[in-house]
Amino acid sequence: MENLSDIPSLAGASRVCDNSLAVSTSGIQSPPQMTRERAIAAYQDVRSRSDALTRPLKTEDYVVQSMPDASPVKWHLAHTSWFFEGVLLKRFAPEISEFDPHFKSLFNSYYESLGPRWARADRGLLTRPSVDEIAAYRRHIDEHMLHLLDTIDEAAFKEAAPLLELGLAHEEQHQELMVTDFKHLLALNPLRPIYHEGPESDHAKTPAPAKFRDFPGGLYEIGHNGDGFAYDNESPQHKIHLQPFALADRPLSNAEVLAFIEDGGYQDFRFWFSDAWTLLQQQGWEAPLYWEKIDDVWHSYTLAGRCPINPGATAAHLSFYEAAAIARWAGARLPTEFEWEVAAGRVARAEGRFLNDGLLAPGPARGDFCSMLGDVWEWTASAYLPYPGYREYSGPLAEYNGKFMSGQMVLRGGSCATPRGHIRTSYRNFFQPEKRWQFSGARLAK
Amino acid sequence: MENLSDIPSLAGASRVCDNSLAVSTSGIQSPPQMTRERAIAAYQDVRSRSDALTRPLKTEDYVVQSMPDASPVKWHLAHTSWFFEGVLLKRFAPEISEFDPHFKSLFNSYYESLGPRWARADRGLLTRPSVDEIAAYRRHIDEHMLHLLDTIDEAAFKEAAPLLELGLAHEEQHQELMVTDFKHLLALNPLRPIYHEGPESDHAKTPAPAKFRDFPGGLYEIGHNGDGFAYDNESPQHKIHLQPFALADRPLSNAEVLAFIEDGGYQDFRFWFSDAWTLLQQQGWEAPLYWEKIDDVWHSYTLAGRCPINPGATAAHLSFYEAAAIARWAGARLPTEFEWEVAAGRVARAEGRFLNDGLLAPGPARGDFCSMLGDVWEWTASAYLPYPGYREYSGPLAEYNGKFMSGQMVLRGGSCATPRGHIRTSYRNFFQPEKRWQFSGARLAK
Amino acid sequence: MENLSDIPSLAGASRVCDNSLAVSTSGIQSPPQMTRERAIAAYQDVRSRSDALTRPLKTEDYVVQSMPDASPVKWHLAHTSWFFEGVLLKRFAPEISEFDPHFKSLFNSYYESLGPRWARADRGLLTRPSVDEIAAYRRHIDEHMLHLLDTIDEAAFKEAAPLLELGLAHEEQHQELMVTDFKHLLALNPLRPIYHEGPESDHAKTPAPAKFRDFPGGLYEIGHNGDGFAYDNESPQHKIHLQPFALADRPLSNAEVLAFIEDGGYQDFRFWFSDAWTLLQQQGWEAPLYWEKIDDVWHSYTLAGRCPINPGATAAHLSFYEAAAIARWAGARLPTEFEWEVAAGRVARAEGRFLNDGLLAPGPARGDFCSMLGDVWEWTASAYLPYPGYREYSGPLAEYNGKFMSGQMVLRGGSCATPRGHIRTSYRNFFQPEKRWQFSGARLAK
Amino acid sequence: MENLSDIPSLAGASRVCDNSLAVSTSGIQSPPQMTRERAIAAYQDVRSRSDALTRPLKTEDYVVQSMPDASPVKWHLAHTSWFFEGVLLKRFAPEISEFDPHFKSLFNSYYESLGPRWARADRGLLTRPSVDEIAAYRRHIDEHMLHLLDTIDEAAFKEAAPLLELGLAHEEQHQELMVTDFKHLLALNPLRPIYHEGPESDHAKTPAPAKFRDFPGGLYEIGHNGDGFAYDNESPQHKIHLQPFALADRPLSNAEVLAFIEDGGYQDFRFWFSDAWTLLQQQGWEAPLYWEKIDDVWHSYTLAGRCPINPGATAAHLSFYEAAAIARWAGARLPTEFEWEVAAGRVARAEGRFLNDGLLAPGPARGDFCSMLGDVWEWTASAYLPYPGYREYSGPLAEYNGKFMSGQMVLRGGSCATPRGHIRTSYRNFFQPEKRWQFSGARLAK
Repeated sequence: MENLSDIPSLAGASRVCDNSLAVSTSGIQSPPQMTRERAIAAYQDVRSRSDALTRPLKTEDYVVQSMPDASPVKWHLAHTSWFFEGVLLKRFAPEISEFDPHFKSLFNSYYESLGPRWARADRGLLTRPSVDEIAAYRRHIDEHMLHLLDTIDEAAFKEAAPLLELGLAHEEQHQELMVTDFKHLLALNPLRPIYHEGPESDHAKTPAPAKFRDFPGGLYEIGHNGDGFAYDNESPQHKIHLQPFALADRPLSNAEVLAFIEDGGYQDFRFWFSDAWTLLQQQGWEAPLYWEKIDDVWHSYTLAGRCPINPGATAAHLSFYEAAAIARWAGARLPTEFEWEVAAGRVARAEGRFLNDGLLAPGPARGDFCSMLGDVWEWTASAYLPYPGYREYSGPLAEYNGKFMSGQMVLRGGSCATPRGHIRTSYRNFFQPEKRWQFSGARLAK
Repeated sequence: MENLSDIPSLAGASRVCDNSLAVSTSGIQSPPQMTRERAIAAYQDVRSRSDALTRPLKTEDYVVQSMPDASPVKWHLAHTSWFFEGVLLKRFAPEISEFDPHFKSLFNSYYESLGPRWARADRGLLTRPSVDEIAAYRRHIDEHMLHLLDTIDEAAFKEAAPLLELGLAHEEQHQELMVTDFKHLLALNPLRPIYHEGPESDHAKTPAPAKFRDFPGGLYEIGHNGDGFAYDNESPQHKIHLQPFALADRPLSNAEVLAFIEDGGYQDFRFWFSDAWTLLQQQGWEAPLYWEKIDDVWHSYTLAGRCPINPGATAAHLSFYEAAAIARWAGARLPTEFEWEVAAGRVARAEGRFLNDGLLAPGPARGDFCSMLGDVWEWTASAYLPYPGYREYSGPLAEYNGKFMSGQMVLRGGSCATPRGHIRTSYRNFFQPEKRWQFSGARLAK
Repeated sequence: MENLSDIPSLAGASRVCDNSLAVSTSGIQSPPQMTRERAIAAYQDVRSRSDALTRPLKTEDYVVQSMPDASPVKWHLAHTSWFFEGVLLKRFAPEISEFDPHFKSLFNSYYESLGPRWARADRGLLTRPSVDEIAAYRRHIDEHMLHLLDTIDEAAFKEAAPLLELGLAHEEQHQELMVTDFKHLLALNPLRPIYHEGPESDHAKTPAPAKFRDFPGGLYEIGHNGDGFAYDNESPQHKIHLQPFALADRPLSNAEVLAFIEDGGYQDFRFWFSDAWTLLQQQGWEAPLYWEKIDDVWHSYTLAGRCPINPGATAAHLSFYEAAAIARWAGARLPTEFEWEVAAGRVARAEGRFLNDGLLAPGPARGDFCSMLGDVWEWTASAYLPYPGYREYSGPLAEYNGKFMSGQMVLRGGSCATPRGHIRTSYRNFFQPEKRWQFSGARLAK
Repeated sequence: MENLSDIPSLAGASRVCDNSLAVSTSGIQSPPQMTRERAIAAYQDVRSRSDALTRPLKTEDYVVQSMPDASPVKWHLAHTSWFFEGVLLKRFAPEISEFDPHFKSLFNSYYESLGPRWARADRGLLTRPSVDEIAAYRRHIDEHMLHLLDTIDEAAFKEAAPLLELGLAHEEQHQELMVTDFKHLLALNPLRPIYHEGPESDHAKTPAPAKFRDFPGGLYEIGHNGDGFAYDNESPQHKIHLQPFALADRPLSNAEVLAFIEDGGYQDFRFWFSDAWTLLQQQGWEAPLYWEKIDDVWHSYTLAGRCPINPGATAAHLSFYEAAAIARWAGARLPTEFEWEVAAGRVARAEGRFLNDGLLAPGPARGDFCSMLGDVWEWTASAYLPYPGYREYSGPLAEYNGKFMSGQMVLRGGSCATPRGHIRTSYRNFFQPEKRWQFSGARLAK
């Protein structure tokens, strides 16, 4: 997979979107550029990556749901297949019979229009279908999908291509979720299981202070420009007016989080929103998720096992609440998603870590805006709301994005668990402000 | 209190915003216009209005807390007094001893900086201090406040005046909350107690369809311009860019709500956000709050008793979720708070009902933008977030507004329970999206 | 009302039941002894006592429900009237119209057969009917009841008499509940309101150790012998076989509770049942209900205000769990209800405090079995189960006792809040094992 | 697996009850009869039976906890091993190092004295140790246990033998729990997985009415007579006095449950305790656990799959509440545990199904008292309380039984999931009255 940061055209803000298409999801070109060969290659690439990601797990690890927000690994593997079955095969190869009539409801995530569903919070109760049976389901879908892509006539291919792109983007989203979900599961186990061997740490030192770069106020274009694949929530492109602002050239590092903790930040109401303060006290938050003090030294669980906190690493597993509190403590604030996007269009270099790098942990908190893309999702100060003139997808896919535009905050930039080609500067991720099991961090603004 | 609608300058729609500054809260001029005499008059006016509002209640009605969102009437009466005691008397007349040392914690609403508090959800457990004792507390505060205003030297008065304004605005906010809280309490009682005799209804007919008026896109100034009293959350004034939009010239009426119900709107997931749909099903929502079907006719509880739904009346007691769902069903959307404020500044006439009218029920849903101010708070599509460059009050009052800028939606325009002088077109009210015990409705945009 | 302890015949076990009948409820003789005059006197006596008990309260105190187990005082006053209306007036004076048709459901406690009910946990939400209206309801019922008792013909009187007895016993039960419910309400108020002036304490010293008296094993008669009024759950009288046992001649005193606390009893799992230990940790129990440590001295709330723990007083406000834990810590156990009844029949003297004494606090923990009746209800080791051959009342009253024979433990002996004539040695009170807002203590057995 | 019934002392069915005192658990004689050879054979027998029971499951099925009452199969397999490690190996072979230091807390069920524990409700979150690792743990324990039994000197063997018996009885209890726990897990899966092939049903007909046999009142001995193994809660043997009673000669069949359902029993409050009625409404009970109406025919889930209700089969998966309600509906009651034990000692024949029969479903409801032992546990009307003079085990095992003597009801007789040699007529099983995932039924008394 090509390295985003090699692509020169990321320099200009107005060109970012061009590139997000050019490099788009897994190298798949959207119509008309999308060819049958690229489609097949992309399909194989994405699907095999899911399998590779889960291979280090034991069968037992595929089954359990560690909290209602998370899903069992085997559910992800089945659900992404169900999406191809329901969105593509049913339509373009209706003669293929369902693999199992139960799967329709078992692996529907949240589509009300597609009928009743097995309750989300109960996904971990299902020991059957087994991991083997789900692998067989995946093979069944792959076989038929590849056959379809190979044999479909040109007119139908043109119709199918955007749905294929969506299906692949969807599976890439679930790859990220699988990683964060199984990290959550393994982290709570007192045996602290190791998923893979980690690299030697090379960035233990406290990083140099972030530099704030000024951006002028004025009118800017926001949103996806329409070339290539993007989700509905990135459109339509529209003008906004910004006040002048300054943005840090690197994300928060663990060094800042440690200083916040030592300064009593988790015990000082002044830094917290009212709802955050209530939650923090209920849940006893004293540090980011996965942090644990052992003999007076802060450690954190990583997929390579538990290790001492590395002050130089990009801070992760922060909730929006924590990100906002640290910003306030630091005399700064979080950027809006518009500020973030404008800045990213001008200065971002995609040198952060991505899923494809295989490390599944954020890298050092380096400056020069080199990791606005990758390493950690960056919480913004923006609520997740529709853009002016927003129109959701039609049909069942109308439920893909729009129905979540309530109660969530926007994150930008992708993380070390995001497939590299999946991200764009216009990409809007969103979670409730208290969630912190994603690789989520922050970058300060002023 | 003088009747605001008598003030000629409210006549021109485009002047409303100018006026909202000129005639600030309760007719109190902000420094330098504020005089000692006006301060005393305003104080007496606001304080006596609280007493008048609660006089029709029985002692029993002052005590009970009908849900955690609401507070007992006697708590409101004490808390607003506590605010004057803590914010003004403690500072400008420190020699006055506390009325009761327990009151500090009993009647602190949410100020973490002011020490421990009696838990909000348990306010209704306190039968003591009794209603009589709280009346004595109010008299004690009034006596000392009036003495202070009378005798304070000029320099200190200048310092005190903005805090007095804030204290009065604060009590006015609680007047509205008292009304909505005791309405909630009386409504759940199967005896359906009557608070006051209602007017003959004169607006039973289905209103004419709303007309949508177009507003051009472009750059606008948003926020309070700095003259006169306003809350910190209305500042700083700043530019925003809007796309062209259209706004209905009247709020939603009960006729539209009835049509939505009859069209199965409460049973159709397509109109609802995902979190709204979950909530609706948990709580069994089938109509706005206080609506009840009796022998196949929809009724609703009002402070004048239960009566059949008046299709011509402005719809109230909608949550944001319901407002958004009805908008979607109607092929429209809610306006952003910026669209609302821009339009209000140009066309709004303050002819809706206010607290001062004594009816405590919204009036007919009339067109021509005559009730953007008054009748019902109008839910907007905007999350409650800080304006660029927002700075909260300093000291304990820092907690007044800023700490709630998470998880809430903005409402604009005031209601039939809002004191007339309290409202401004730049005024930002905010509640969680599921709340509906306020007089909250909506106005459609496109 | 005659003093139980004057009655010599309490000496012999086999005679206890005779006496419990002889002195029965409020001195009311059951048919044939019951005369019209005694009925009227008893009715007036019981009803006026309810009013006298609540007179020291403020209106506000009548309204609030401090927890789901408790009811508002005004609810008790109405519910006991509803019982006379439903059980006697409806049947013997059907021509009298209902005072208010809503009261049927508002003041039904738990009779499924009598139609829908206002939810128990929501009793405190009802500010109307007001305290005044309920007083009027009580006067209405009294008027009609006295007229009925005065004018009913002899045959009907014979039929009515047992129902009257039940109605009076029922109101006496609610007198005790009113006391414990308003004590709970006042106790949680940080102002620690004083209900009445208390007596000078005369029993502050640690009491002499309890003496254990041996009782022989063998066959005994248990249950009410059928003379005079008793509840259905005390019948039928039947034989049981007991092992030899020993019973303490006085109840637990605060001195023992203090020693248990100081010995770490609330932190040592070995003394607690598994479900008790879970509950204790959830709720943070560290002492009996109403105990509070101030400057290292244990205090407790009484209706005469908060005062230091009196080591010589009978321990109260223990749950079954605490009673059993203290017994275990002391190397003893709780008696079964059968052991208790057998012992009481032989040695009990009714010299404990009763409601009629007006102190509403248990007296000193004195030996010689002088307070098996009065002072505190004594938890037994017996689950509340039906006696062999038990038959509940017929009709709606079938729900009076039998349906609670699951999940509760038996208490015996009455308390300082029990009307003196209400108690019998065969009387079976019952509560869930975690409840502690009653005046409940314990007596050790071996 | 050898058939336990081959062990001669169990040979005569009619003697079981006589013998229940004489013949102990699994044919293991308690000291002095216990020999080293029998100990080894019994150990191998019990341990291999656990493995055989779980072999038909998939790896996924070992991991999940379907509700807090249940535990994952792999937890049971580890916990029973932990018991041998902690109770026997630590004491008699202290030189053996722990298999894994984490297991102490991971597989401690509820022993407060043995240190902190992984929370019961979170057992299903642990995907590690894996099923393979737990199998290795079992092999490790088996190796050392067998070596110990082989080499321990005679004096130590005498000391160890009762603990070994307890360890084996403990594992047998967990065999039953494993069966009921994985039945619960598989039952909720919409795929209705089949654990094993079931037998052809041979008892579909409605059974003949139960015959009630009279037993005289009088004095009886209750409890274990001290020969052979029994739990502490069966002692001491003591006298009780019974009224004359009659007991049905067969348990309730599905035919009676169907009649109760059709008669509206689940909708009629009169049959239910107050707490049962509340629960029934909260949970929507309309039939026993695992019953499901499909096209108007009642089915139930069995380990051989879902099949239509067999009216002739012994009713199972009843809560105490349901058992008591059906009894009441039938004009009868449940027997006390004493009545049950007295009757069983005289007339019981152990011809019900046991775990060893491999069917894991209760058989036909046959008369003549042939299945008081086996088929289903029979709820009694007795709360689980200590016998007079009860002394629990010493040391950590003090927590085995005594601490649960609160809030539970006694069941008697064993079930189709109980190992045959595990049961005795004096055996007291106990569960909370709402539990119904055990093979629990009832027998009527009068």
